[in-house]
Amino acid sequence: VFLSLQLNRNDQATLQAQMFSQLRALILSGCVRPGAVLPATRVLARQHGISRNTATQVYDRLVSEGYVETVRGSGTRVSLSLPETRLRAPSIEMGPKTFGHQNELAGAAPKTALVFRGTQPQLPETGLSRVRIDFWPGRPNRHLFPVRIWRKLLTEHLTNAGTSLSEYGDPAGTPSLREAIADHLRFARGMNVVSDQVIVTGGSQEGLNIISRLFIQPGTPVVVENPCYQGAALTFASYGASLEPLGLDKDGILVDHLRGRRAALAYVTPSHQFPTGATLPLDRRLHLLNWARQVGAYIVEDDYNSDYRYSGPPLVALAGLEPAGESVIYLGTLSKSLGAGLRTGFLVVPTTLIGPARAVKALLNFGHPWLEQMTAASFISSGAYQRHLRKILRVCCETRDCLLYNLTHTFGANLSLSGVDGGMHVMWRLPSDFPSADQFAAATRGHGALIHTTASSGAVDFDSEIGDRGIILGYAALTETEIRAGVTAMARALDDLTAGSNGPNRVMDPSENGGLALLANP
Amino acid sequence: VFLSLQLNRNDQATLQAQMFSQLRALILSGCVRPGAVLPATRVLARQHGISRNTATQVYDRLVSEGYVETVRGSGTRVSLSLPETRLRAPSIEMGPKTFGHQNELAGAAPKTALVFRGTQPQLPETGLSRVRIDFWPGRPNRHLFPVRIWRKLLTEHLTNAGTSLSEYGDPAGTPSLREAIADHLRFARGMNVVSDQVIVTGGSQEGLNIISRLFIQPGTPVVVENPCYQGAALTFASYGASLEPLGLDKDGILVDHLRGRRAALAYVTPSHQFPTGATLPLDRRLHLLNWARQVGAYIVEDDYNSDYRYSGPPLVALAGLEPAGESVIYLGTLSKSLGAGLRTGFLVVPTTLIGPARAVKALLNFGHPWLEQMTAASFISSGAYQRHLRKILRVCCETRDCLLYNLTHTFGANLSLSGVDGGMHVMWRLPSDFPSADQFAAATRGHGALIHTTASSGAVDFDSEIGDRGIILGYAALTETEIRAGVTAMARALDDLTAGSNGPNRVMDPSENGGLALLANP
Repeated sequence: VFLSLQLNRNDQATLQAQMFSQLRALILSGCVRPGAVLPATRVLARQHGISRNTATQVYDRLVSEGYVETVRGSGTRVSLSLPETRLRAPSIEMGPKTFGHQNELAGAAPKTALVFRGTQPQLPETGLSRVRIDFWPGRPNRHLFPVRIWRKLLTEHLTNAGTSLSEYGDPAGTPSLREAIADHLRFARGMNVVSDQVIVTGGSQEGLNIISRLFIQPGTPVVVENPCYQGAALTFASYGASLEPLGLDKDGILVDHLRGRRAALAYVTPSHQFPTGATLPLDRRLHLLNWARQVGAYIVEDDYNSDYRYSGPPLVALAGLEPAGESVIYLGTLSKSLGAGLRTGFLVVPTTLIGPARAVKALLNFGHPWLEQMTAASFISSGAYQRHLRKILRVCCETRDCLLYNLTHTFGANLSLSGVDGGMHVMWRLPSDFPSADQFAAATRGHGALIHTTASSGAVDFDSEIGDRGIILGYAALTETEIRAGVTAMARALDDLTAGSNGPNRVMDPSENGGLALLANP
Repeated sequence: VFLSLQLNRNDQATLQAQMFSQLRALILSGCVRPGAVLPATRVLARQHGISRNTATQVYDRLVSEGYVETVRGSGTRVSLSLPETRLRAPSIEMGPKTFGHQNELAGAAPKTALVFRGTQPQLPETGLSRVRIDFWPGRPNRHLFPVRIWRKLLTEHLTNAGTSLSEYGDPAGTPSLREAIADHLRFARGMNVVSDQVIVTGGSQEGLNIISRLFIQPGTPVVVENPCYQGAALTFASYGASLEPLGLDKDGILVDHLRGRRAALAYVTPSHQFPTGATLPLDRRLHLLNWARQVGAYIVEDDYNSDYRYSGPPLVALAGLEPAGESVIYLGTLSKSLGAGLRTGFLVVPTTLIGPARAVKALLNFGHPWLEQMTAASFISSGAYQRHLRKILRVCCETRDCLLYNLTHTFGANLSLSGVDGGMHVMWRLPSDFPSADQFAAATRGHGALIHTTASSGAVDFDSEIGDRGIILGYAALTETEIRAGVTAMARALDDLTAGSNGPNRVMDPSENGGLALLANP
């Protein structure tokens, strides 16, 4: 056998390493078959202009890894125990970029088919290509992240970690974080909750998966809002749920439409409906709870934006209205108050579900990273979280006021906003003589700002009227300058779209004076 | 209506807060029905000995939250829009500990049934009740955690986080960590991998879930080892897989038994079989890959312990033996080299699966916490990880030597160990005239040390012979003193179990001199 090796003395890899990997490739590809006798080290060295010592070392390593064997009297041969069928290997060791060679060899079968049927949720644009002014709704103000105290707490816990970093912890979360969350929810959301009911999750998204694994199999009916937060709708659908969209009006879901309907789960966002921003009034909350009791359904309450409430009554969570705590599964998150990069959320389950939910979470990933949990626990229980919430509420309210002022000033009577009382975004329901939401968003992009339709903001629309008319404007992460520039871009876009047509009245110039128009749902 | 309120002036809550919550409870429980007129504030104040101002504030808040309404001429009444059916509420506001009152009211239906069928994996004992000397296998040495450099990297990244903490990142992982992992695997495991194939996960456990969601539906055949790591077996089973256990000998799985068998997936631990410690030889690796190609199966290679290799050839991963990278899904983890508290692992998938695996991961939790990822990325790419691996390898090898010395010294010819070449644990296959593994472990616990059967170490045994005979001894987290004390406890336990019987030869006293016995699978 003459071994066709290509040794490159300018390569980073040593000659020995090059020779080893190329010989290995020849054997694995079947070019040199089991039983084939390899040249003696003396011959190999001469053929390739290397030292005999190098050749010996290469053979030694091939022997030790089982590719070749030394046979008394016949020198070195390719191991007989290796399978005859060659692996598909022509591209071996050709560098990391060669993949997917489709040179089918005899006997290869088609690969196991995917059973997963799901759609990846759409995330906002990031990175360099991102438009600078982006009204995407799910972003808090990054300048408010409490870097200093977070660093102090991280460092303290890391230094005193003991066995906590090297070992597994409670899959449902560290006791201190679960306590801190339960305390916070009792105080801030009126919920009658103990820490055992709290399960720390990788964002509320992971909570949706835990709920899905508990209750959803193909065909399970799940009531959702229309439009619905995509993270929920796509997750339920990926487990095979049959989604049953429920209509909305300016106050949120139409609970009357639940009459006579049965479902396993109903997913709702009562604090600030995503994406319309509606706050579900008390009577509808109670009707919803009664419906759940009557049909045995669980209500999944996603309270993603409840930390931001500027005016109106401090409505307690659904989970706080149901004292026996049997029907509501509550989803909370730190993604809006601190940041999505933490990936920390929590699930609060009825006592009857504690065991199964813990089991699902343990099977899923044995729990959330310890250091993130401990830092969050100290942050909440020290009172720093309450102070932080007051601060972001104040700043975000100012930002909202700036947006409302500029919008009203610019679009005047054409403005019909919902969701202004709380949250991090508002929805503008465009008048019927306006261009569609898609057209408006595309044209605004042309002027350097991203505004969103329900679809691009992260909602799934089941053929509702809102999909065509709703413009979502997230403001929490923007500066006042950006907001002014963004609204100007919207005005110019609308000018472009309506120029020369009999469309909507031309908008006012932002520099003109204009009074605050009436808001549809103040 | 006379409102039966119980106000306590010594309570932490203000009189106003007490009054509000009790009135709210009376309304929600239906004790005061919709339409019922409440006493005038003047009357209420007199009845309960409070100021009129307090009573007015309570009513104002009830109005603002929608519980009551003011009607001209008739004062204040309970809102008519509230549902008539009362919520089950007798325990409302009675403190956080009152749950699960089962006073069924008319119309309540049984709750949605669980569809989840799964078993929570068993985790090691932690906390105060834990036995001090515990040979549980999955624990690295906590004193080797690189606290100082980890703190430095954490602090740097936190300080320079920019938008990364407040926003969502790539659900598959930060580019820097995926690059660092791909580089490491190319170097350390001989894998031909690019960073796009790497998906950062919450431990390898989360990787198992991603694989399950991709491929498993009820009845899907999955080949597993017998015994098999419980985290894998229980996860596959929870998605409905039909598990097909494959027998083992001292070299690992019996690949001949795959002939004629079809399966969607085969889960293996070739570097250091869990729990027997066997290292799968090259010929069986190649046979396994050929089988996978022939039947179209994916091989799930769990490389949990490959960083620990003390002697023998540095076998490349299965994923490195298959150059076109089409059949092997690779699971890696930082849980053994750094610590399980980080909850950081990774999945390496064939290029054809990158899209679906990313989608599953995005739906699952939108990715791993950013700061943990960046710290790990810098730790690996700076070279600190390689230095760390060399250090833990040296220390762990010394610890292993100490264990082997003490075991051989004490149990002599009765010792038959596997898995000594690498990993963080060995398995002792007890001689047939010894007590069972269960009996031995229970008796040793009586002497203050925890040794493990395959089941208590975290394996699922499908009626293999090993379940009854295998003792798992994890040593990485123990000091030499603890190891000596643990082996002494084992010796005493065996003495207890065999005293007066015709059982195995009495063991040697640890203080006697004794040579190193032959190890079964050195």
